[in-house]
Amino acid sequence: MVERLVVIGGDAAGMAAASEVRRRRPDMEVIALEKGHWTSYSACGIPYLVAGDVGGFDDLVARTPDEFRMKQHIDVRMRHEAMAIDLDRRRVEVRDLERERTISIGFDQLMVGTGARPIRPQLPGIDADWVRGVQTLDDGCALLAQAKASACRRVVVVGAGYIGLEMAEAFHRWGASVTLVEADPTAMSRTLDREMGDRVADAVRGLGVDVRLEHKVEGFADGAVVTNAGSVPADLVVLGLGVAPNTGLAEAAGLLTGIRGAIEVDRRQRTSAEGVWAAGDCADTWHRVSQRRVHVALGTVANKTARVAGINIGGGYARFGGVVGTAITRVCGTEVARTGLTEHEAVLAGFDHVAARIDTTTRAGYFPGAEPMTVKLVAERGGGRVLGAQIVGGTGAAKRIDTVATALHAGLDVTELVELDLAYAPPFSSVWDPVQVAARRAAAML
Amino acid sequence: MVERLVVIGGDAAGMAAASEVRRRRPDMEVIALEKGHWTSYSACGIPYLVAGDVGGFDDLVARTPDEFRMKQHIDVRMRHEAMAIDLDRRRVEVRDLERERTISIGFDQLMVGTGARPIRPQLPGIDADWVRGVQTLDDGCALLAQAKASACRRVVVVGAGYIGLEMAEAFHRWGASVTLVEADPTAMSRTLDREMGDRVADAVRGLGVDVRLEHKVEGFADGAVVTNAGSVPADLVVLGLGVAPNTGLAEAAGLLTGIRGAIEVDRRQRTSAEGVWAAGDCADTWHRVSQRRVHVALGTVANKTARVAGINIGGGYARFGGVVGTAITRVCGTEVARTGLTEHEAVLAGFDHVAARIDTTTRAGYFPGAEPMTVKLVAERGGGRVLGAQIVGGTGAAKRIDTVATALHAGLDVTELVELDLAYAPPFSSVWDPVQVAARRAAAML
Repeated sequence: MVERLVVIGGDAAGMAAASEVRRRRPDMEVIALEKGHWTSYSACGIPYLVAGDVGGFDDLVARTPDEFRMKQHIDVRMRHEAMAIDLDRRRVEVRDLERERTISIGFDQLMVGTGARPIRPQLPGIDADWVRGVQTLDDGCALLAQAKASACRRVVVVGAGYIGLEMAEAFHRWGASVTLVEADPTAMSRTLDREMGDRVADAVRGLGVDVRLEHKVEGFADGAVVTNAGSVPADLVVLGLGVAPNTGLAEAAGLLTGIRGAIEVDRRQRTSAEGVWAAGDCADTWHRVSQRRVHVALGTVANKTARVAGINIGGGYARFGGVVGTAITRVCGTEVARTGLTEHEAVLAGFDHVAARIDTTTRAGYFPGAEPMTVKLVAERGGGRVLGAQIVGGTGAAKRIDTVATALHAGLDVTELVELDLAYAPPFSSVWDPVQVAARRAAAML
Repeated sequence: MVERLVVIGGDAAGMAAASEVRRRRPDMEVIALEKGHWTSYSACGIPYLVAGDVGGFDDLVARTPDEFRMKQHIDVRMRHEAMAIDLDRRRVEVRDLERERTISIGFDQLMVGTGARPIRPQLPGIDADWVRGVQTLDDGCALLAQAKASACRRVVVVGAGYIGLEMAEAFHRWGASVTLVEADPTAMSRTLDREMGDRVADAVRGLGVDVRLEHKVEGFADGAVVTNAGSVPADLVVLGLGVAPNTGLAEAAGLLTGIRGAIEVDRRQRTSAEGVWAAGDCADTWHRVSQRRVHVALGTVANKTARVAGINIGGGYARFGGVVGTAITRVCGTEVARTGLTEHEAVLAGFDHVAARIDTTTRAGYFPGAEPMTVKLVAERGGGRVLGAQIVGGTGAAKRIDTVATALHAGLDVTELVELDLAYAPPFSSVWDPVQVAARRAAAML
């Protein structure tokens, strides 16, 4: 009998795993179930679609269902929602949303790629149709349709994390008057240290977005967002409060879950059940610096962990190398990146540390187009091991975080960071790369 | 008696070492001798000055003689040329070029930072005043003065390496009609593999520069550059044939020299003579990948090796970590970078290797401003250790070389490169960074 893999979820994790399996096992039957209307898309692109940088939703689709069917012989079933997993009988109960019928599909191996869902706190009025999250491409479609239909002029974005900031800028550029409401005292408070987040908040304010920090949302009523410091009128509310792993199905089936409710996997992406794998936003992962299990909902991690799952399902051998907590965005012309641990996280994780912060320029200071940039580097006392870095600055600033991310993987210390033979020419850098200037400062502090 | 350090050469290497010594040894007397008119300048900025990107020569000066004197109490003597070093008597014979007199200065420690000189092959007519090299800021001043005075319209650049390409673009933008003459079959032939160099040559042609490959210069006569394939009229000729370490003084004193005539130093920057140190373009250095002594004339290496020398002279302890052969430039809107070994160099160094080349884009493919980029990655057969990379592409392409440079320092293999947690957002990258796409390809070839 032909061995069958069933994949739940047709976005990055599910389809990357399915593709990897297909490459290795042309003989295996691969069925992929997707409850929505799209496969394998860039959810990260949604803000840029709203802003008008990207022409249409199709542009965000890396591969269509038909391409998976024709080129890779993957049996992609759209608008099919997995309702239950029976681990003993090795079957998935599936709702065919178009035909309104329920079917049962057996599996030999099961890949869970159910992703994440936007966090929606239980606040009065949060289920109103003018209060929306942005996670899937279907969410994005609905959001843009709503915005266009209502010709909305006043948009309130709740939450000043990545998605919130990107959506605030997007709707500002779309033409709306935008208010950004955040309960914490700065922007990106779960991502950056306070003084770095302040730089980001300033950049967003500079564009003309009304940024209200330390405003806690209490509900949504009568066309307004109600906060502890007054109401903000809104035609449309976008929730940017982060995401949680979408694991109701997995939990109900008895798969073990842990940190933040994510499915527990080992470094080969195996769940607690034999022959059942998980990857992407629904699964937990391992942080190389803190040596702890973490939940990271990012496309990069989804693609990498899914590839590992696919190699293993396909009979190969791969282990995921873990994350170091790298993330990047561009908000209102300001580039923002981080990797490893912030100073705050280093303290929480029990590291005795030094933190060096330097202000410099993106290019040689005399070179046209040189813009300010700030680098903050955190290192462990004693050996001087690099623990993390944050960068906020102009064009060309943020991708330098990759140098530190690579250093974190390799476990380099600040002296080694200073030694690195990094690229210099006046259009790109000062002669000492800003990352190294920060490393020198940190080395001096040690 | 006060201990005295004499520094020969007032550019990056000499002054970085002097500054480091001053920080550590406020008590030491530090005399720095510079035969030219400038200290501590960015020679790399000269092409951008000619092109008009930079306002004036002063902009390229990181620190003036007076700043060194006032802020750091370094006795900088301008227009003082060291003529001879007497290692036994521990004295330097110095020509004061302004006052036209010769003096003798004793030293306890000596730092040699005499830099490099442009290669000038013994060709007929090469000493004409319309044939010029570009190495020092004095050279740059003279070149620009000559260009302005003669209102030169036809510039011929000899040599399609970094300097040659940058000067060709600079004079094109300055308003001249530019011909680039190169003996090899492609651009940057000593830096890139053939097919990558071809991409650069195409970019320069695209700007309107007349690129003549496989044209060997035979001499300069009657206002023309004579080549094996005909004459090219020129009001001004710029030599971009690379540089050689400027070590006549050191050799005459009996210091050991080696690779390409560079002063032999150990990893603490000690020369063969007790208490005599060298760093920067005049000294050799160590290549971490090939494990060989090499000569690299770059500002980054000069600053790093000088810092090491300064720490050691000042009584501290530092060892230089070596180079991995990183370099970068931007030519006619195309970014070019390399690190480690090219495929050609890997073969010469005896590595059994694979080379993967991928064509992709600088940002997510659907994102506005995404430009083509090509990454070539070279890895060792067997373990898959990364040996080097080359990148040619649009804005944002080239600085990614730092990821590979860091990986080379740490000795990562291609599987580890694939695992790296690099930064992704649509304005910056595809979800798999191009470097990782190349690494995946290389891993598959292994």
